Amino acid sequence: MARKNAFYAQSGGVTAVINASAAGVIEAARESKLIGKVYAGRNGIIGALTEDLIDTSKETKGTIAALKHTPGGAFGSCRYKLKSLESNRREYERLIDVFRAHNIGYFFYNGGGDSADTCLKVSQLSETLGYPIQAIHIPKTVDNDLPITDCSPGFGSVAKYTAVSIREAALDVVSMCATSTKVFVMEVMGRHAGWIAAAAGLAQEQEGDAPHIIVFPEIAFNQEKFLKKVQQAVKRYGYCVIAVSEGARYKDGSFLADAGTTDAFGHKQLGGVAPVLAQMIRSELGHKYHWAVPDYLQRSSRHLASATDLEQAYAVGRAAVAFAEQGKNAVMPAILRGKGKKYSWSIGEAPLADVANVEKKMPRHFITRDGFGITDAAREYLLPLIQGEAEMPFKNGLPVHARLKLVPVEKKLRGSFSL
Amino acid sequence: MARKNAFYAQSGGVTAVINASAAGVIEAARESKLIGKVYAGRNGIIGALTEDLIDTSKETKGTIAALKHTPGGAFGSCRYKLKSLESNRREYERLIDVFRAHNIGYFFYNGGGDSADTCLKVSQLSETLGYPIQAIHIPKTVDNDLPITDCSPGFGSVAKYTAVSIREAALDVVSMCATSTKVFVMEVMGRHAGWIAAAAGLAQEQEGDAPHIIVFPEIAFNQEKFLKKVQQAVKRYGYCVIAVSEGARYKDGSFLADAGTTDAFGHKQLGGVAPVLAQMIRSELGHKYHWAVPDYLQRSSRHLASATDLEQAYAVGRAAVAFAEQGKNAVMPAILRGKGKKYSWSIGEAPLADVANVEKKMPRHFITRDGFGITDAAREYLLPLIQGEAEMPFKNGLPVHARLKLVPVEKKLRGSFSL
Repeated sequence: MARKNAFYAQSGGVTAVINASAAGVIEAARESKLIGKVYAGRNGIIGALTEDLIDTSKETKGTIAALKHTPGGAFGSCRYKLKSLESNRREYERLIDVFRAHNIGYFFYNGGGDSADTCLKVSQLSETLGYPIQAIHIPKTVDNDLPITDCSPGFGSVAKYTAVSIREAALDVVSMCATSTKVFVMEVMGRHAGWIAAAAGLAQEQEGDAPHIIVFPEIAFNQEKFLKKVQQAVKRYGYCVIAVSEGARYKDGSFLADAGTTDAFGHKQLGGVAPVLAQMIRSELGHKYHWAVPDYLQRSSRHLASATDLEQAYAVGRAAVAFAEQGKNAVMPAILRGKGKKYSWSIGEAPLADVANVEKKMPRHFITRDGFGITDAAREYLLPLIQGEAEMPFKNGLPVHARLKLVPVEKKLRGSFSL
Repeated sequence: MARKNAFYAQSGGVTAVINASAAGVIEAARESKLIGKVYAGRNGIIGALTEDLIDTSKETKGTIAALKHTPGGAFGSCRYKLKSLESNRREYERLIDVFRAHNIGYFFYNGGGDSADTCLKVSQLSETLGYPIQAIHIPKTVDNDLPITDCSPGFGSVAKYTAVSIREAALDVVSMCATSTKVFVMEVMGRHAGWIAAAAGLAQEQEGDAPHIIVFPEIAFNQEKFLKKVQQAVKRYGYCVIAVSEGARYKDGSFLADAGTTDAFGHKQLGGVAPVLAQMIRSELGHKYHWAVPDYLQRSSRHLASATDLEQAYAVGRAAVAFAEQGKNAVMPAILRGKGKKYSWSIGEAPLADVANVEKKMPRHFITRDGFGITDAAREYLLPLIQGEAEMPFKNGLPVHARLKLVPVEKKLRGSFSL
């Protein structure tokens, strides 16, 4: 059977371990008897549409291995969702032109829920437009909101970063609270789901430990209850540490961050729920505050990645290739949690139709009754995901990352394609 | 010779390694034939004034050793500067009462420039008020602005955190810049001196690497030049990563952060120069941005501490005890850099009178001519300080920190003291 080439692309917000999935795909494909070369899309699916492909066979074995300790998206990612076949047929025809020109028979798409939708549409090309292709989605999102899979690769590492960072910062705050900062607010990602905010709760080991309050996007923000809780913590422990999801919102659905601030010119300022909460506490309770917004630091902190997460990210990359070799289409490798008391996991198969556009929110029973903390059930779910410190090389005091050659594949099509 | 007890206190903003200095003091004092017990001030000098002392002899050897991997100030710190003897004689008399009551003959004060001033005043008590005491200052400050010492313990770790974090985040930004965020602004500490901002420059290895711009407090901010530089980077590399010191200011001395934002109620919002710069770029150039303010995370990130910094922090703690044993007073152990090509350091002795209230700024030749980067001279100075990854124990995926008993010393004085 003649070998066909594979297309691999990264999609949506990147993570500390998405490149480990890339390494999994490329290493497994190099061992495969069915797959020829792996061409990566420069900047995700846009690379396919614009015939901007990167020949991963030009990268050394060492460089591909180094992807496992390189955060970000090594081939470039993008936020671009294919429209339906009906509303933008020319995009699909273009994809087929590019795939045919480069003998591509496998489509590996590494992303979250929106990307699963794109992958599903590509998987239907055989049926809809008669071009034979196998499309496999590789799960990735710090938001942990993909369904079916027990967790999403990328989440465990941001969870670990969040728990470690808030535990460390809390030690700083408690040292100074007698005469200085009493309230510390740390903002975390997760616009729709509070998984990352929940992970902050892992820092708490004993009664009184930080974080004292978690503000979830799933629970309508009640200012009165919130301020009461802050005051309680300050009274009881001398300080109050708060983790807040960027997606925190009022009962009417409006984001706290938007209720936010305007700059000197009267422009509305985007983002930053932490300063909004801090200011609210200062205005209403008078406490001195500090706030932190780690932003991209949290999802790129490969230096603090979870070893479990890293292994899973690599494994789903390899599994995608195995699925392709087994002739599968429109599926996603999913992490399945073992039933035993001790955490274990294996790779299962999820039909893409069940994954695309479905958002897994935090179950209500993961959040304490008062809405400001996590329950033992949440802890039991979350704790295994941050286990293990993923090693990485340092040189001269700084982390060593892969430097790819990113050699472009020669274009075969005439003309350009406008997005 | 009868043993005398020692007083140890932490002062000012804490660091990832200040507790390593505490461990150095306590471990060396336990071996000393001259020193009895080490009493730590709860919340710094306030603990001395209020006779709120912690008996460190009640902590196990293991707990004291664990201080080496515990960020924050284990005994509590404070921002409290003693006034002059003339203007607040009762404070000094109170200190003597407390010292006498607890047989304290050694005063170890672990802090920055302001604290050195307090320590100097205490060192003069023998002379001014006839109470025999030896006061030794132990250097500590993330700001790296203490004079005489080649660097300040605490700085190397925040420098490492900053360089690593911006290098990692830049990999995130570059992955997405084709279709999403083009400008990333990371705010770092350092209100008066740009040492931490400079450390961000270490992330740059090759031409084109992030950070593309550093905004120093030492260089008056010129909006036009700045925006031009941003535009250049976006054009040339597709993205622009900026490190900005919280102390960035205009020519007239006003802070960019203050020129800042007001909340929904029209209150001026404190802090946050990163969002101000980001907004400026959006308004003037139209680029999509993200910004990060790690705040306390940067100075408490023991998980990413510099091994060199940790060793030095521990060494100055031990050296302070050695100085005490040698009968010294009004001095500070200083880090001296060896003359050789290969980095080496030793501990020297700095007279406190030369340390107190002197602020070491970045030399101009550490900053590039255009004011937006660091020179090779800066690199040569900074790089040795972030060498080595200071190990620390993890349990269950999270860092293990010392949990002290903090047993109070029985009070011997009647009445209380109002600050």
